[in-house]
Amino acid sequence: QCFACKSDSSGGSNSGESSKESSRCSTPVLDADRTDRLRDKMRRRIESGDRWFSLEFFPPRTAGGAVNLIARFDRMGSGGPLFIDITWHPAGDPGSDKETSSMMIASTAINYCGLESILHLTCCNQTKEKITAHLNKAKRLGLKNIMALRGDPIGADWEEEEGGFNYATDLVKHIRHEFDDYFDICVAGYPTGHPEAESYEEDLKHLKEKVDAGAHFIVTQLFFRAETFLKFVKDCRAIGITCPILPGIFPIQGYHSLRQLVKLSKLEVPEEIMQVIEPIKDNDDAIRNYGIHHAVEMCKVLLASGDVPGLHIYTLNREVATIEVLRQLGLWAEDPRRPLPWAVSAHPKRKVEDVRPIFWASRPKSYIYRTQDWDDFPNGRWGNSSSPAFGELTDYYLFYLKSKSPKEALLKMWGEELTREESVYEVFTNYITSQVNQSGHKVRCLPWNDDPLAPETNMLKEKLEKVNRRGVLTINSQPNINGKPSSDPIVGWGPPGGYVFQKAYLEFFTSSENVSALLKVLKKYEPRVNYHIVNVQGKNITNAHDMQPNAVTWGIFPGREIIQPTVVDPVSFMYWKDEAFALWIEQWGKLYEEESPSRMIIQYIHDNYFLVNLVDNDFPLNNCLWQVIDDMFELLDAPPEPLE
Amino acid sequence: QCFACKSDSSGGSNSGESSKESSRCSTPVLDADRTDRLRDKMRRRIESGDRWFSLEFFPPRTAGGAVNLIARFDRMGSGGPLFIDITWHPAGDPGSDKETSSMMIASTAINYCGLESILHLTCCNQTKEKITAHLNKAKRLGLKNIMALRGDPIGADWEEEEGGFNYATDLVKHIRHEFDDYFDICVAGYPTGHPEAESYEEDLKHLKEKVDAGAHFIVTQLFFRAETFLKFVKDCRAIGITCPILPGIFPIQGYHSLRQLVKLSKLEVPEEIMQVIEPIKDNDDAIRNYGIHHAVEMCKVLLASGDVPGLHIYTLNREVATIEVLRQLGLWAEDPRRPLPWAVSAHPKRKVEDVRPIFWASRPKSYIYRTQDWDDFPNGRWGNSSSPAFGELTDYYLFYLKSKSPKEALLKMWGEELTREESVYEVFTNYITSQVNQSGHKVRCLPWNDDPLAPETNMLKEKLEKVNRRGVLTINSQPNINGKPSSDPIVGWGPPGGYVFQKAYLEFFTSSENVSALLKVLKKYEPRVNYHIVNVQGKNITNAHDMQPNAVTWGIFPGREIIQPTVVDPVSFMYWKDEAFALWIEQWGKLYEEESPSRMIIQYIHDNYFLVNLVDNDFPLNNCLWQVIDDMFELLDAPPEPLE
Repeated sequence: QCFACKSDSSGGSNSGESSKESSRCSTPVLDADRTDRLRDKMRRRIESGDRWFSLEFFPPRTAGGAVNLIARFDRMGSGGPLFIDITWHPAGDPGSDKETSSMMIASTAINYCGLESILHLTCCNQTKEKITAHLNKAKRLGLKNIMALRGDPIGADWEEEEGGFNYATDLVKHIRHEFDDYFDICVAGYPTGHPEAESYEEDLKHLKEKVDAGAHFIVTQLFFRAETFLKFVKDCRAIGITCPILPGIFPIQGYHSLRQLVKLSKLEVPEEIMQVIEPIKDNDDAIRNYGIHHAVEMCKVLLASGDVPGLHIYTLNREVATIEVLRQLGLWAEDPRRPLPWAVSAHPKRKVEDVRPIFWASRPKSYIYRTQDWDDFPNGRWGNSSSPAFGELTDYYLFYLKSKSPKEALLKMWGEELTREESVYEVFTNYITSQVNQSGHKVRCLPWNDDPLAPETNMLKEKLEKVNRRGVLTINSQPNINGKPSSDPIVGWGPPGGYVFQKAYLEFFTSSENVSALLKVLKKYEPRVNYHIVNVQGKNITNAHDMQPNAVTWGIFPGREIIQPTVVDPVSFMYWKDEAFALWIEQWGKLYEEESPSRMIIQYIHDNYFLVNLVDNDFPLNNCLWQVIDDMFELLDAPPEPLE
Repeated sequence: QCFACKSDSSGGSNSGESSKESSRCSTPVLDADRTDRLRDKMRRRIESGDRWFSLEFFPPRTAGGAVNLIARFDRMGSGGPLFIDITWHPAGDPGSDKETSSMMIASTAINYCGLESILHLTCCNQTKEKITAHLNKAKRLGLKNIMALRGDPIGADWEEEEGGFNYATDLVKHIRHEFDDYFDICVAGYPTGHPEAESYEEDLKHLKEKVDAGAHFIVTQLFFRAETFLKFVKDCRAIGITCPILPGIFPIQGYHSLRQLVKLSKLEVPEEIMQVIEPIKDNDDAIRNYGIHHAVEMCKVLLASGDVPGLHIYTLNREVATIEVLRQLGLWAEDPRRPLPWAVSAHPKRKVEDVRPIFWASRPKSYIYRTQDWDDFPNGRWGNSSSPAFGELTDYYLFYLKSKSPKEALLKMWGEELTREESVYEVFTNYITSQVNQSGHKVRCLPWNDDPLAPETNMLKEKLEKVNRRGVLTINSQPNINGKPSSDPIVGWGPPGGYVFQKAYLEFFTSSENVSALLKVLKKYEPRVNYHIVNVQGKNITNAHDMQPNAVTWGIFPGREIIQPTVVDPVSFMYWKDEAFALWIEQWGKLYEEESPSRMIIQYIHDNYFLVNLVDNDFPLNNCLWQVIDDMFELLDAPPEPLE
């Protein structure tokens, strides 16, 4: 279904805004690639002989499906696709603001998952005005790439429409006319000719017209034999098509999906494939294994030809077969080099962003959402009074900020019933230790962490367990690092040949009794430890007296300025604490009936506990933050001093 | 003479520009003090009980005297004065652009020596328009503080002028009226009453009027007994003067200067002092020692009183007595903590500057001069095409960029006659080793380094000697540092509790033969070593392909963002190389007759040698740059490879 939409079509008119990049100061760009357009990235990769892959997805049908697809984007994004593309479903309100629309899924991929994305757009049976409105919206959302397609005419017998878009060429011309060079444009190629074309040769001519109209590269319809594609490329080059041509690879994943696809795209499955598949048609695993094997063998031939700079995979929104094919080809990034400790947004405006507060480390999508209206990164700083405020917290339960787990699963993890504050301590402890709780369930997430512990945090597991058991409810932490190679599999990030550093960080909720003791203890650790302690009522205790941000992660690289991607910033902490406290109620408390004892326990913690952050500035020494907490417990355990 | 000008005076009118601070981005300010106004710095120091000192100078008579005075500013600035002040000499064209004018000396102190400075201004016998023009010029040059004085009337019998400035009060009012709050204003106090005042009480009233008119603090005329000053402060407080009152301290430095001063200022020297001085009046050393002793004892009483937040020293433009007094009082900063590896300019516009190219490390005044027209620091970056260009090189021989040594001294150091290129190598080698040359003279400076080797460079002495002997003519270098405390006496900088880092850096001139070998060798050191190699004709070889700056000095501090004060920047290097090559001719070649062999040797080097910079990016390992040079020599020494 997802390629059936790759047909041809015709032109229109509208007025485009000029592209205004945010003006930035001196902060260096780590990855030169980041500011490139997709066409430039391709050119660089072709020049360096560095092969890539890309992934095609279709929009989900339900909101639940959208949450799952976005989680899949995060997982598959880690393999290092050059781009992903989202198909356009004319019947499914594809340009709307629905969670499931093509437009919103592509926008989410760019803005929240940091993936370079192409939005498909079909022009058949659409007015020029509507098309222009879609393109303007795409631009506004940060999309820079369009796959220009005709789409399938409604009804069996299609006729050209006077003055309408009848071919993809018309759409390409329209985009270039109305938006000049703003969009990178991709068009579809048909290795065996478009089913409706008069001939293969005639279809090649149409393809050349599309490219000449302003397309930057071609992605092909699927095919089953490497030679089909290689001949096609040769024929394209022969008539003067010089842009990149990417083969569309379809790993066969099941008998029925293959049949359906073949019917829609009017392709014929070669005899040698049918002979293998027919006998095993009821064995899904066997078919999938064959599909992987077939795709890998075909791709090896393609890559060996020297004519194929990258592979475009039709994923059918599934992971296993695609990842396996790419692994076997050595294209899947087994050890993805993080450009920064957090995923960089692919929105053109945010590409220059290179510093964030550490508080949102486990909720990056919330941070992006709440700062989406900022004009300037990183200049629009938290501490800068002229910068716009954080987005309203009321939006934070938006669907892509929702927990991935349903209510029932959360109750099993966090307790069907809480009897006292210590019940909560136990939940935190079980999350840290990955032990099952009393009712036999693992605690795989907390309101502040929708995923299991990061490998880096695992390094602190033992210490974390001990303090959570006693009511120091940790929600964020990092160990100190004194110059590990940037290639370190756990804490490394950025280009090779560099060194990364961290100051130890610890953030937790704890009772006001504990805070009283902690404040006494902290006097001994001045000025080594910076602290910031707040409660929901706005009580605010800190020794960051001049309210400057404290760099807690930084990296030194060959031929680069220093990069400091995460900071502890006292100003933005005040926004974060609103979110952190609200999560108690919104994600946890509301699982229980109003007025129920469980709900009241969560409400009590929300109303009375403090949120604390601690930074150990002396990063070359052993982290002293555990000693600080130990000292606090010791003070609490000491017998009261006798009155003189 | 320098205090005779502290008399009283009267008001006028003009239009002030509004103060526009440069807009800056995220780069942190290391020293909160830096952006404060002088009045705020005083307030902070008073609140913290941290006593300060300040130094008064008068403008020199000759350009040679100006060069010496500026060198003295650099030396005395290292002791940590809160501010210096420059007296105003109505007879000496004090507001002109002459090298010796009060205006230019104060401007140099601020802009080139980084000293917070107060410019004196007298109003007697001056038109309002003239005064306003002086103030506008002072503001334009970056001066933020004015000492408002009446000045001495011309002729013996002074009469009030209708509508003119007759009292300092008038000048204070005028400054506040025309420039609002832009200037910090200081006025003079007379502990024994102004000689022309009707009475001590009357004079106190005048002082209160000056303060009420808008002055921020008071500096007093000199006095000889602590009780004189302490009574004066008490009397000031009694009539409601609440601003800081700083005692003017005059260490007696000679019999004749004391006599002259006393005559001019109409003070009486107490009997107990005359009794000591008269018998030793022909022994300068004895008088100076007594003067130091007397000043120290008096200051101890003042400081112990609790009424004295800082001492203002009348230096008479001399160093020894002042430094000795301050040392004995424990006020002289023995181990000045550098806020950054280079002296921060005190110009309001440049206070936010926190990164510079390393190339001008030994010529900071040249860098400041050549970037003086920039609007924005550090945003107006070298690599930023929108930033203004470097100032023209033709200005570089300005008087304060001149060598401190006269031509004869330079010829003795650098050779009355050069016979071959190796003569030049020897000069470089002798500079490094501090050995005397063949004619028995130490080489104390080079055209690129007007001072002896920095202690930090001394760490590299042995290596440097070896390579200079063979024609690798080093002009700039730093060792790698992997996290030394910011309090380190040699490489430390910035606030306490931090850690500083460096990448090893080496910059030198060398022959094209050497460069050919070096380029072969450097292939082995990719990507560890960044290089940039240029000649005077503009040949330009570098592996910094994306032309980004490379941070080579950085610091990590408690509760702060990362600071990276020096970088190797490929764009600004192209400006620096023009300056570096020009220095061969301007400072060295021109010492010899045109067409002379010596001159032709320098010209040959200028025309044919390359300027090379190398950075070892792997700062935690042993510096590999010496190995690079060794490898180059080895390649040069190897017998030519036999042809197959």
